Amino acid sequence: MMISGLANIGGLEVKGNGSAFLAFDPDQQVSLEPAFFTVDAQQIDEACQLASAAFDHFRETTDEQRAVFLETIAEEIVALGDSLIQRAMAETGLPRLRLEGERGRTVNQLKLFAELLREGSWRDVRIDSALPERSPPRPDLRLRMIALGPVAVFAASNFPLAFSVAGGDTASAFAAGCPVVLKAHSAHPGTSELVARAIVQAVSRCQLPAGVFALLTGTGNGIGQTLVAHPAIQAVGFTGSRQGGMALMAVAASRAQPIPVYAEMSSINPVFLLPHALAQRGTAIAQGFATSLTMGVGQFCTNPGLVLGIQGSEFERFAVEAAAALAPTPAATMLTAGIANSYQAGVQTLAQQTDVKTLAHVAASTGKAGAALFVTSAKTFLTQRVLHNEIFGPAALLIACEDLAEMRQIAEKLEGQLTATLQLEEEDYAAAQDLLPVLERKVGRILVNGFPTGVEVASAMVHGGPFPATSDGRSTSVGTAAIQRFLRPVSYQNMPQALLAPALRDKNPLGIWRRFDNVLGKV
Amino acid sequence: MMISGLANIGGLEVKGNGSAFLAFDPDQQVSLEPAFFTVDAQQIDEACQLASAAFDHFRETTDEQRAVFLETIAEEIVALGDSLIQRAMAETGLPRLRLEGERGRTVNQLKLFAELLREGSWRDVRIDSALPERSPPRPDLRLRMIALGPVAVFAASNFPLAFSVAGGDTASAFAAGCPVVLKAHSAHPGTSELVARAIVQAVSRCQLPAGVFALLTGTGNGIGQTLVAHPAIQAVGFTGSRQGGMALMAVAASRAQPIPVYAEMSSINPVFLLPHALAQRGTAIAQGFATSLTMGVGQFCTNPGLVLGIQGSEFERFAVEAAAALAPTPAATMLTAGIANSYQAGVQTLAQQTDVKTLAHVAASTGKAGAALFVTSAKTFLTQRVLHNEIFGPAALLIACEDLAEMRQIAEKLEGQLTATLQLEEEDYAAAQDLLPVLERKVGRILVNGFPTGVEVASAMVHGGPFPATSDGRSTSVGTAAIQRFLRPVSYQNMPQALLAPALRDKNPLGIWRRFDNVLGKV
Repeated sequence: MMISGLANIGGLEVKGNGSAFLAFDPDQQVSLEPAFFTVDAQQIDEACQLASAAFDHFRETTDEQRAVFLETIAEEIVALGDSLIQRAMAETGLPRLRLEGERGRTVNQLKLFAELLREGSWRDVRIDSALPERSPPRPDLRLRMIALGPVAVFAASNFPLAFSVAGGDTASAFAAGCPVVLKAHSAHPGTSELVARAIVQAVSRCQLPAGVFALLTGTGNGIGQTLVAHPAIQAVGFTGSRQGGMALMAVAASRAQPIPVYAEMSSINPVFLLPHALAQRGTAIAQGFATSLTMGVGQFCTNPGLVLGIQGSEFERFAVEAAAALAPTPAATMLTAGIANSYQAGVQTLAQQTDVKTLAHVAASTGKAGAALFVTSAKTFLTQRVLHNEIFGPAALLIACEDLAEMRQIAEKLEGQLTATLQLEEEDYAAAQDLLPVLERKVGRILVNGFPTGVEVASAMVHGGPFPATSDGRSTSVGTAAIQRFLRPVSYQNMPQALLAPALRDKNPLGIWRRFDNVLGKV
Repeated sequence: MMISGLANIGGLEVKGNGSAFLAFDPDQQVSLEPAFFTVDAQQIDEACQLASAAFDHFRETTDEQRAVFLETIAEEIVALGDSLIQRAMAETGLPRLRLEGERGRTVNQLKLFAELLREGSWRDVRIDSALPERSPPRPDLRLRMIALGPVAVFAASNFPLAFSVAGGDTASAFAAGCPVVLKAHSAHPGTSELVARAIVQAVSRCQLPAGVFALLTGTGNGIGQTLVAHPAIQAVGFTGSRQGGMALMAVAASRAQPIPVYAEMSSINPVFLLPHALAQRGTAIAQGFATSLTMGVGQFCTNPGLVLGIQGSEFERFAVEAAAALAPTPAATMLTAGIANSYQAGVQTLAQQTDVKTLAHVAASTGKAGAALFVTSAKTFLTQRVLHNEIFGPAALLIACEDLAEMRQIAEKLEGQLTATLQLEEEDYAAAQDLLPVLERKVGRILVNGFPTGVEVASAMVHGGPFPATSDGRSTSVGTAAIQRFLRPVSYQNMPQALLAPALRDKNPLGIWRRFDNVLGKV
């Protein structure tokens, strides 16, 4: 399939008015044709205006129509065939199997939201019947969630399909009824163009207004700033660096009308080795940890970057075994030169800290990353804030704590995280119970006897967490609850049946779950 | 009941370390004894630290325990007896009947949240069972909402009970499991002290940690700034002026860890007179409008400050009748001298605008407000932004539109509002259908053939709306959905039963609604 190097606005492929840039194959270390072009402020404005014009129609399409739209996008993505996988491989250095898996995840994600739409309880319909005899009389009140407005979505570099053009942010925004203006990640513009074409095809097949989706291409921070500042944009979805997310938060907060930003930014995902688990399964945990750390060259938001144990021979053995388990994993290509450089710099900073000992560091040539493992004491970790920073890639820091109390103290000092992991045996339950309240305050997901990489797309998933893991710890960007980010409630008082949306009408024509006089039911 | 002039921190009555101030009787124009004292930064810190220390315990009390706590507060408020009503009358100038009604509302609100806690679906429990045979295996995932953390609540001046110390923000935060650090409104410090005593009594009777509640007394903006900046505070509830809300939003956004602010700020609550309704019921609507506008001396967030009609003889007659209906309502005492002065200034500004005609202005002595009614054209309204500002009090502006298209254009240009009202007959449905999408984007509640004052505390109520009606249009501050402001989701992966909260355990020991493998049920 031809890649044209074009953005997509109003269903039309258009050339960005700004400067040219090329995709880059990080594995072959060569630039890829064709050239792409950065859109300018006028093109961003056009995309936003079209999104705004499409909004009222799109948000009032039936749930069935949006479900079919999501399924059609999935179909069109599959129809892109191997050219999508090939281009994604070239642009990211990620292996075929991983990308095929990610395509499956992307497609399933779209289908999951289609299911959610058909089930209907996401509308949170509430009906309080009139009580005309009461003094004062109670009016008839009916509440539903409606779409928030056009959403600006910033694609992530590390999931060129599942967190990119047709990823979770786009799928959940579409499901809610929000048009999406998508800023493509400049590291995989060709992959983005192909997926955008699939979406535009679905928009057309489903006879939706063309403004429902736009793909903006470009490099630099200017597009993001202009896009988030645009009055038509009503919410922002972002996955990327802390710096990037914070910059968008600042723009959103300083608008004449501030808007919510859902930015997933930074996490070091602490793993707590409780004593009995360490004693009984230390070797297996070291092995599992090494696999989780190096998976995808460590380029996951949920990478286990911090491992805490109680100092002593068992933790020392764990450190040796973990280092040994990392050694055979060869250095591998990172997504971009920038990410590879940041990784090297981060690892170097860590290695140079006083009282931080390097246990392993697999050598790597330019553009690649080798696993790195360090160890330090809890006291050092508590005093050196730089040790709390995320190093995006296969690097982790072990923390030797004096006792469980010190381990809890570290937990208490951590910033917000996406995940925390407990390795435990039944004899560790008391220790876990002591840690849990702290972890609940700090993270979005708590795992037992697993590793945090691998984020299931499900109803009960939370891929979110207190700041700075995300900008808004009240939300998740993965799983069906992600739709709630793009909704707001509207109440209708004494509205005649003829003017009510079907979801709110007396006879429940959609047959969905509703809260009727405070009782949940399909009434 | 004695009023001591003290703040309440950690369950103890303490004298603020700062400067003294007195409450003021706006009706009698006299100061009221005793003196109150502004708390200092150290006292604010102490209250926040205690709230933080109480948090883990309080949020994991059972729902039944928190339900009983809310009911006990209600009981203790009733037990304050007439001294509460008397002090509130003296401090606010509001009449006895209104305050007795408001006490009933406050008590019912607490009981409604107790009911919600016992019903349990607010936890949004989701369970996705493990699929060990799938490739890769799906882990067991369980989600629940947990409390966000200590909440700073700023009491409103205009509802000294229902939006004050034990008002909706406090009730919903307590229900969620959040300790509350309450900044009392300096216009009714004695009323606040009495209600705080009721809460503290309930905290003690329910054997909760004393840090669950604190009452901070004082004047000036310093307390608010210090309180919202405190690291222990995790969310803010506020009802007041746009300027005040925006100042708190700025503090919250500039913290090292930004936190959500739920500020209810400003609304002019447009009323749309559709042609057939105006023709058929003009006189009755004028009467109803005048009653709604002057109720409580217009000191409601949902006061109907803007009325739009199609120009012509019927709208002219409506203007005359509305002005006539307002004339007999005597000027009445406003809550504070500041509010009265702002009202006079606002009315004066309006009267002086080019192309704005004064239809009525009831004379008022110092501290009082008389109703005021103005009329202008849609064109003038569109060009003069000052006409869009809220005037807190019994003032309204009529807008003569050329036709329905211009009426829709005005709707499109309005800022976010708490409410919009449609006066309509069946023949107006088409016009209403044309307006509704615009109104849905602009407001939190749409009423038909009523008036916006009178906000029912119910499951389907939305007392919220897009900025600047509130800081966060995704929320409501009235009704059971208000609890959602103070919650965030946590997911538990492969967590042993023994470590799970009861709401998440296999057997559903609480018997609450849960989403089990995507199906809602009491399983």
